[in-house]
Amino acid sequence: MDQARVTGPVRIVGTGLLGTSIGLALTARGIEVQLADASRANLRLAADYGAGRPASQGDAPALIVVAVPPDATAAAVAVELAAFPEAVVTDVASVKLAPLELLRAGGADLSRYLGSHPMAGRERGGPAAGRADLFTGRPWVLAEHAEASTTALRQVEALALDLGAQPVRLDAAAHDTAVALVSHAPQLVASLTAARLVGAPEAAVGLAGSGVRDVTRIAASDPQLWQQILDANAAPVAEVLSALRADLDALIAALNDLEAPGARRAVAELLAAGNAGVARLPGKHGHSGRFTAITVLIDDRPGQLARLLAEIGALGVNLEDLRLEHSPGAELGIVEVSVLPEAAERLRAALTERGWRIAG
Amino acid sequence: MDQARVTGPVRIVGTGLLGTSIGLALTARGIEVQLADASRANLRLAADYGAGRPASQGDAPALIVVAVPPDATAAAVAVELAAFPEAVVTDVASVKLAPLELLRAGGADLSRYLGSHPMAGRERGGPAAGRADLFTGRPWVLAEHAEASTTALRQVEALALDLGAQPVRLDAAAHDTAVALVSHAPQLVASLTAARLVGAPEAAVGLAGSGVRDVTRIAASDPQLWQQILDANAAPVAEVLSALRADLDALIAALNDLEAPGARRAVAELLAAGNAGVARLPGKHGHSGRFTAITVLIDDRPGQLARLLAEIGALGVNLEDLRLEHSPGAELGIVEVSVLPEAAERLRAALTERGWRIAG
Repeated sequence: MDQARVTGPVRIVGTGLLGTSIGLALTARGIEVQLADASRANLRLAADYGAGRPASQGDAPALIVVAVPPDATAAAVAVELAAFPEAVVTDVASVKLAPLELLRAGGADLSRYLGSHPMAGRERGGPAAGRADLFTGRPWVLAEHAEASTTALRQVEALALDLGAQPVRLDAAAHDTAVALVSHAPQLVASLTAARLVGAPEAAVGLAGSGVRDVTRIAASDPQLWQQILDANAAPVAEVLSALRADLDALIAALNDLEAPGARRAVAELLAAGNAGVARLPGKHGHSGRFTAITVLIDDRPGQLARLLAEIGALGVNLEDLRLEHSPGAELGIVEVSVLPEAAERLRAALTERGWRIAG
Repeated sequence: MDQARVTGPVRIVGTGLLGTSIGLALTARGIEVQLADASRANLRLAADYGAGRPASQGDAPALIVVAVPPDATAAAVAVELAAFPEAVVTDVASVKLAPLELLRAGGADLSRYLGSHPMAGRERGGPAAGRADLFTGRPWVLAEHAEASTTALRQVEALALDLGAQPVRLDAAAHDTAVALVSHAPQLVASLTAARLVGAPEAAVGLAGSGVRDVTRIAASDPQLWQQILDANAAPVAEVLSALRADLDALIAALNDLEAPGARRAVAELLAAGNAGVARLPGKHGHSGRFTAITVLIDDRPGQLARLLAEIGALGVNLEDLRLEHSPGAELGIVEVSVLPEAAERLRAALTERGWRIAG
């Protein structure tokens, strides 16, 4: 393993999922980690897991990571800045402007503060869910602001790199607008769509396929966490949803009177915009490309999928994506493998030759 | 293979994806298939693929499957009912009420007509995309109506069963309402969400994770096909979207003034409804249960995923679901395997012991 970039010791305030995961990763890299948590039980559990040692009087951390709930973040950062006048302080809350403004209003020393946000995706809580690899390969936003010192920026960037993440510099407002668009609003759209299913007849729900499952999957997320996130980023989320509502209004009006001039065109333009929007999402390795999907039917038994993938691997074809679907009521699995277009025909032919049932 | 249930010969009108797939499957079962298509090129291609023989004078089909675009369906069914007074006629359009009402208004012999809708999911067109296995394990709606004879119902049910699908009886209006809810409205929600990304800054799009990718995936679908579907099912879709808009209005109002009485509660109730709605979707084998997800980090090379799944298979653990994710910019794959909760701890321990990196 490379030499750690971060200058320690590192003090971590809050030993939930994120704090514990950061502690585990830094400890594994040989950095001294000092843990603090208002919950003595959480603190001991995180220490037991190997995330660091409980903080003690006389600790002199070089970097402090505040990993407490969004609405407690600014106050905790202020306390740390005051208590450790030599240390750089960051936080990992998923909203960045509100804490910065609170700190600025409170007269905190912002030269030593740089907020951050690891886009780590998991939302299961508590120290026991912590994993040293949680941040590997994920974007980690560094929320730049005018008062931050170069030292602060370098330390937080070093933290992200040491944890295997990819640092992304964005100012706090741009960060909040970005996550409202690519995370918070889609979360609510999923909830809105799933909410329609609550009172639906069983027969209707029985016709559901992979489309609606995809659209609504994240609606299963932890409502308490989302309540807090939305509380702290309400305005940018409302802005995205208001723009979406304008499109929705036009769409409903068009569907309610398709014979009106421009109605069918309005539907067509929305469908085209949807095509264009989804094409902008980064695919594998940052490409925003399209792959060719091949659908294979397999018996729904242990080992079948492995055998299929072993044969694909043996053919030297890399999977760009894989989706597994089960037919309702059938002992049959449907596997959709996505590969580079130039490999698709060869793979299809080879799998057919080997006796696999290709459904499309 | 079991004896075919359908009484042939079967005449198929329209040799696109669905018509060709039905022809391939019936031919494979030894049923005589007669193909008709306004496009001579499509017809010949479908015949070349083995979907049947071109129809000729003197054919006397027992069952006719009309597989033309939704807006041409009713007229084609009427022509077939008149031309073959002994045959049962069905269609496979994804909307069911409009064709039925057109036929009823035109005075067609509805005792011999029963519309149907295979929930086959693929939306690539043309005979070359046809697959005999396209319908395996999928629901196939039989659109019951008062005038349909028992013979008509039995024949169309036999067709669905012969093709490996699961027949589901629903009246035409109930079908259209159901697919508006579980397919057409979610399609538009995906488009609306994806449309927000069109003008988004690159930095924002770069933070996108699997959540927004899932919500917007189907927005990449064929806009021409969807234009037709929406045209034929506009009212039920508008109704679902209007109900969604009422929730959206309340949500935006709450986010714009979180301090108003009841605002936070409105957000909480929507998140809870989202949880409840997604829980209603059928999971594997018709269960609507939850599985435990284990995240494994793998090198992004051919064969790695196969090796992982082979080891999972060797442990006798069946995968309930599998998701593959690539870290942007990293040569690393993230595999989320979902298993029955009772198998999760054992699997996690066994994989760790075998040297796999478990991220959560």
